[in-house]
Amino acid sequence: MDNIARLKEEVYQANMELVRKGLVILTWGNASGIDRERGLIVIKPSGVEYEKLRPDHMVVADIQGNKVEGGFKPSSDTATHAALYKAFPELGGITHTHSPWAAAWAQAGMGIPPYGTTHGDYFYGEIPCTRKMAPGEISGEYEARTGDVIVEGFSQTDADRMPAALVHSHGPFTWGKDPWDAVHNSVVLEEIAFMAWHCIKLKPDLPPMQAELLDKHYLRKHGPGAYYGQH
Amino acid sequence: MDNIARLKEEVYQANMELVRKGLVILTWGNASGIDRERGLIVIKPSGVEYEKLRPDHMVVADIQGNKVEGGFKPSSDTATHAALYKAFPELGGITHTHSPWAAAWAQAGMGIPPYGTTHGDYFYGEIPCTRKMAPGEISGEYEARTGDVIVEGFSQTDADRMPAALVHSHGPFTWGKDPWDAVHNSVVLEEIAFMAWHCIKLKPDLPPMQAELLDKHYLRKHGPGAYYGQH
Amino acid sequence: MDNIARLKEEVYQANMELVRKGLVILTWGNASGIDRERGLIVIKPSGVEYEKLRPDHMVVADIQGNKVEGGFKPSSDTATHAALYKAFPELGGITHTHSPWAAAWAQAGMGIPPYGTTHGDYFYGEIPCTRKMAPGEISGEYEARTGDVIVEGFSQTDADRMPAALVHSHGPFTWGKDPWDAVHNSVVLEEIAFMAWHCIKLKPDLPPMQAELLDKHYLRKHGPGAYYGQH
Amino acid sequence: MDNIARLKEEVYQANMELVRKGLVILTWGNASGIDRERGLIVIKPSGVEYEKLRPDHMVVADIQGNKVEGGFKPSSDTATHAALYKAFPELGGITHTHSPWAAAWAQAGMGIPPYGTTHGDYFYGEIPCTRKMAPGEISGEYEARTGDVIVEGFSQTDADRMPAALVHSHGPFTWGKDPWDAVHNSVVLEEIAFMAWHCIKLKPDLPPMQAELLDKHYLRKHGPGAYYGQH
Repeated sequence: MDNIARLKEEVYQANMELVRKGLVILTWGNASGIDRERGLIVIKPSGVEYEKLRPDHMVVADIQGNKVEGGFKPSSDTATHAALYKAFPELGGITHTHSPWAAAWAQAGMGIPPYGTTHGDYFYGEIPCTRKMAPGEISGEYEARTGDVIVEGFSQTDADRMPAALVHSHGPFTWGKDPWDAVHNSVVLEEIAFMAWHCIKLKPDLPPMQAELLDKHYLRKHGPGAYYGQH
Repeated sequence: MDNIARLKEEVYQANMELVRKGLVILTWGNASGIDRERGLIVIKPSGVEYEKLRPDHMVVADIQGNKVEGGFKPSSDTATHAALYKAFPELGGITHTHSPWAAAWAQAGMGIPPYGTTHGDYFYGEIPCTRKMAPGEISGEYEARTGDVIVEGFSQTDADRMPAALVHSHGPFTWGKDPWDAVHNSVVLEEIAFMAWHCIKLKPDLPPMQAELLDKHYLRKHGPGAYYGQH
Repeated sequence: MDNIARLKEEVYQANMELVRKGLVILTWGNASGIDRERGLIVIKPSGVEYEKLRPDHMVVADIQGNKVEGGFKPSSDTATHAALYKAFPELGGITHTHSPWAAAWAQAGMGIPPYGTTHGDYFYGEIPCTRKMAPGEISGEYEARTGDVIVEGFSQTDADRMPAALVHSHGPFTWGKDPWDAVHNSVVLEEIAFMAWHCIKLKPDLPPMQAELLDKHYLRKHGPGAYYGQH
Repeated sequence: MDNIARLKEEVYQANMELVRKGLVILTWGNASGIDRERGLIVIKPSGVEYEKLRPDHMVVADIQGNKVEGGFKPSSDTATHAALYKAFPELGGITHTHSPWAAAWAQAGMGIPPYGTTHGDYFYGEIPCTRKMAPGEISGEYEARTGDVIVEGFSQTDADRMPAALVHSHGPFTWGKDPWDAVHNSVVLEEIAFMAWHCIKLKPDLPPMQAELLDKHYLRKHGPGAYYGQH
C-alpha cells in the first residue's frame, strides 16, 4: 500500500471516528490528513453520507485545495484545511465538526477560558474564537478566508500548544500530528466545552485557573519535562 | 407496488426514523406524505405504539383530512397536516414531534433566531413560533386551526426556505420534498434548538448571525448557486 | 398462575422497565401493584440489585405495609405506597424513582407548572410538590408520613387527573391503573420535567399555558369526550 | 490466586466499570485498591488505553507511592492515592475521574451542598471542594500535595461519612471499603452533581435540605440503626 492509499485509510478512519464519538451527525464534519513530502491533502468528499463512505472515496487535493484525484468533489471546507496546512507546517491532520457544545461557544463568539486541569492537559490557554469575518471575506473565497482568520496571530508554536480554534458563528476546527490525533483533540474539546459551560453557569464571574496549575498540567504531558503516560 | 403502497412504506420508514433518531418517545409524533396526483395523504395511525407499527397500518386521507382507507383512525393531527399540504403545494412530507429541545422553545413561545452556520445551512432566518390560538380556535376545529396559525404569513417561497415552525405551547412541525426529507429537517431542527439554547445562555444579548453569513451558508446549499455536496 | 403470581410478574416487569427507560440507576426506585380484592400489595424488595431481580423476589404486603410473604424485606418505601393505595382506592400501581430531571424540581421544592401540550396530554394542571415535612414526621414513621404529605388535599378525582407528585427534597411518585401505567407516567413526567426546566430558563417569567389549551389536550385524551388513539 | 493477584483483578474491574458507567473517557481516570496487611497499593498504569488494559497491567506500589512491581509506570496520580491511604486507615479503594458534572463543580471551586435525599443517602453533608493549592505546592511534589489538601481537616470519621471530595480546578476523588465501593460512590457523586446543578439553577437561593432529613436518610442506610436493604 503506498502512502496515499495508507493516508486515505487513516483519513477514512478519522472521519468515521468523528461519527462514532458523537461529534458529527448527518454530514456535518470532515477530517483530513497530509502527505508533507508530496504536498498532497487527503480529505472526505463533500456531503456524502457516512454510512456509505469507503476509504477509496477520500479525495486527494494539492496544497492550494484543488482536487488532484478522486471520484467525488472534496469537502466544501477543503480550502480552510489547505490554509491551515500552509500556515502550520507541522500539522499532519485536521478536523472540523459542528459538535454541539463547542458550537455553542462558537455561535456566542466566545473563546473557552481554561477553567480546569482537563483543559490544561491539552490546551495551553484560552481556546480562541475568531473575529467576525468581513462581508467581502464572506462573499469571496469564503472557505479560504475562514482558514485565514483562524491563522491570524497564531504562530507554529501557538498551533502546537493550542490545537483548536472556534470559528465565530460556526464551529470548531482541531488539528494534530496526524488525522487520528486531530480527532482526539476534537473529542477533548467537546468535553471541555461542556465542563466550561457548566462551571461558568455555576459561577458567572469565574476567573481562569491559576497560571501555575495550567503550566503544571500542560507541561507534565507535553515537551521535554513530560512524565505522564508510558514515555 | 402502486404509488400508495410505496408511499405507505416511505411514511412508515419516516415514522420509525423519528424514533430511531430519538425525536419521538411513546406515541408523540407523526410523519405523513402526499400523493399530489391523486390528492391523497398517507399518515401514521393515532396512538399506536411504534414497536407494533407496520407499513400497512398507515392510513390514507383526502386533502381535507378525512379518512379514505385504513384499518385504524388516522393521527389526531391529520387536519394540521392537511392544512399545510393545502397551503403549500410543493410539500411532499410533514412531520410533527415533541422533540424536547425544540419543544422547550415552543413552550416558551419563542422562535429560534439564526445564531450560526448550522442553522443557516438549512433554515433561512428565524424559525418562527406561532401566535397563541384564540379560545374559539382551540375549542372548535383545533387541529385544522393549528395548521392555519402555522400558515399565517407564510408564502410557498417562505415554506421552501423555512421548512419548520414551532407551534406555541406545543412543539415543532417540519416539512420537506418527501417524508424522509421532513424527518431530516426535524433532526436538524432539534440540533439547532440545542445549540441556540446553549449559546444564548452563554451570551443573553446575542444578536442573530451576520446577514451575509446566513446568505452564504443558505445559498451555498440551496438554489441555483449551490456548490455543497455532489451536485 | 394465580392473581398474586401474575401481579408479581407485572410488578417485576414494571421495575425492570424503570431501569430500561433510564429512570432508575443502582437501586434507586421501586414499583408496586395491588390486588384490590385481597387487599395485598406486591412490591420490589429493598436494596436488591436490578440485575439479580426475579419475579418471585417480589414481596407481598398487606394494605398497612406489613410483609405477608416473601424471602426478602420489602422496599423501605412500602409504607408510602400503602398510604397512597389507602387514600386513592382507584390506584392499581405506583412507582417511585429519583429520575434526575423530576428530582431537580423536587429538590428545589417546586411543582412543575403546565407549560405545554405534552404536559396537558397527561397531567391536568401543575404537578404538585409536597410541603417540607416537620421534624416529628421525619423522626417517626417517616415513610408513612411521606405518603400522607402527598395525599394532603388530593381527592380521588385529583389523583385520577394528576397521577404524579414530587416529594420535597426527594423525588417523584407516580401512579396509574396498574404498575405498567404508573411506569408510563413516570416516563412522561421525566420528559416534561426536562422541557419545563428548559423553557423557564429561556423565559423566566413564563406563565402557565392557556387554560383552554390545557383543557383541550387533557380532555381529548381522557374522559368521555376523548378522541385520541384507537378508542 | 494470592491476595495481590486478586486485588489486581478487582482494581482492573473497578477501572473498567468507570468506563462502562460513562465516568471516564480516553485515559482520564484511575482506580486503586490496597492490601492493608502488606501495605501495598495496586493501581492502574499511567496513560494506557482502557481497551488494551488487562488485570496483569495493574501496578503495585508501596504506601509511599513508589513502584514495587509491574511492567508499566503507575498512574501519575499514585502519590495522591497514597496520601489518602496513609491519612485514612479504613479506606480499601480510591477512584479519581474527570466525570463532567462533578468536574464542573470542582472547576467552579464549589462544594456540592446537600439538596436532597439522594445526596443524604450517601454523603453526610456538603461534598467539600479543596482550597486552591499554593504555587509551591503545585511546582513541587504536586500529586502528593493534592492528596494533602484533600486530607486537610478530614478525620477518619469524616472520611467514612463523606467518601468524596472535589479537588479545586480539577475533579473528584471518591473512596470506599474496596475499589468497587469507591467506583459506586463515584457513580452516585456524578448523579448528585447533576441534580444539584439543576436544582440551584431553578432556585438560586436554595438552602441545603433540612438537617433532620439528611440525618434520617444517611442514618437509615449507615451505622447501627440502618434499616435499608437486606441487612
